[in-house]
Amino acid sequence: MKALKERILRDGKCFDGGILKVDNFINHQMDPKLMKSMAVEFVRRFARTDINKVLTVEASGIAPAIMVGYLLELPVVFAKKKVPSTMENMLVTKVFSFTKNRTYDVTVSKDYLCEGDKVLFIDDFLANGNAAKGIIDLCNQAGAELVGMGFLIEKGFQAGGKELRDMGIRVESLAIIDSLDNCTITLRD
Amino acid sequence: MKALKERILRDGKCFDGGILKVDNFINHQMDPKLMKSMAVEFVRRFARTDINKVLTVEASGIAPAIMVGYLLELPVVFAKKKVPSTMENMLVTKVFSFTKNRTYDVTVSKDYLCEGDKVLFIDDFLANGNAAKGIIDLCNQAGAELVGMGFLIEKGFQAGGKELRDMGIRVESLAIIDSLDNCTITLRD
Repeated sequence: MKALKERILRDGKCFDGGILKVDNFINHQMDPKLMKSMAVEFVRRFARTDINKVLTVEASGIAPAIMVGYLLELPVVFAKKKVPSTMENMLVTKVFSFTKNRTYDVTVSKDYLCEGDKVLFIDDFLANGNAAKGIIDLCNQAGAELVGMGFLIEKGFQAGGKELRDMGIRVESLAIIDSLDNCTITLRD
Repeated sequence: MKALKERILRDGKCFDGGILKVDNFINHQMDPKLMKSMAVEFVRRFARTDINKVLTVEASGIAPAIMVGYLLELPVVFAKKKVPSTMENMLVTKVFSFTKNRTYDVTVSKDYLCEGDKVLFIDDFLANGNAAKGIIDLCNQAGAELVGMGFLIEKGFQAGGKELRDMGIRVESLAIIDSLDNCTITLRD
């Protein structure tokens, strides 16, 4: 997606160890017009997909997901990164974060991820795919069908995208980073 | 706001200890059409206010905030609930959560909350106002001006709303709960 790629090249910041920071327009400060444009692009890409629910994970996935849900007029559920003390009836999966070097729980209520749901998962980043695999596990536990996964940015040099596609999952990424070597952002055409 | 009040009465769940759960349409599953309608109402209420930035706190504030930012064509910043390891240049304040019975850090980058900013703060709940006071502290640290605070739901029987208004802050809440006694939701007219 052209507008996103241009923005990544303009405002993305690259750090040692393959770290890309997009705090200026996605992860901390957000550009709502760009968010809406990205949501439009997801709607186009999944136009032929039967969806009844949008799923994301707090916190950076919420903004693109709510925009997709708004355009599609579908409910949006955000999975939580720990088990809330006031919630019962939760499905739980464990996700290892390389960024934070620790395992955390991702949870969703059985009331809002249900058997027969046709789920479009939306998130900001796809890298090694661990969070995405946690979502697959939650959908399996719920008996829900994962009909697609949409990411704003995919790190194409990490394994997550290939693994998910090899599992037969429809994965759409609006920008794919081929390399962050030498602190230079190289985008896939 | 009529649509929100009706939804609270229909789908809100009340528990002992003055707990109101709105997981069905705000805090876990979200209704994007209602989110957009609530954002429209904030835009109306703050129509005469000079704003250049929308601020919220992860995670439940992000959806209403991005909708307000989209309508106003303004950047939206979400403060984070801990100090991210990959971020520098952060302003930090401490907030005590009664719900969780612990103190946590709320942080925002100096790059995105700046001197001269005219900030509209948006969040889902106003109860004792501790998170809101943390936001006031962050704005003061940054030299930003807090021009208003908008909440989806205010617990009118707790002190936060009165304290903020007594400080001279323009506070707008789309629904005010007068009581949750006997697990019955009583809304202010």
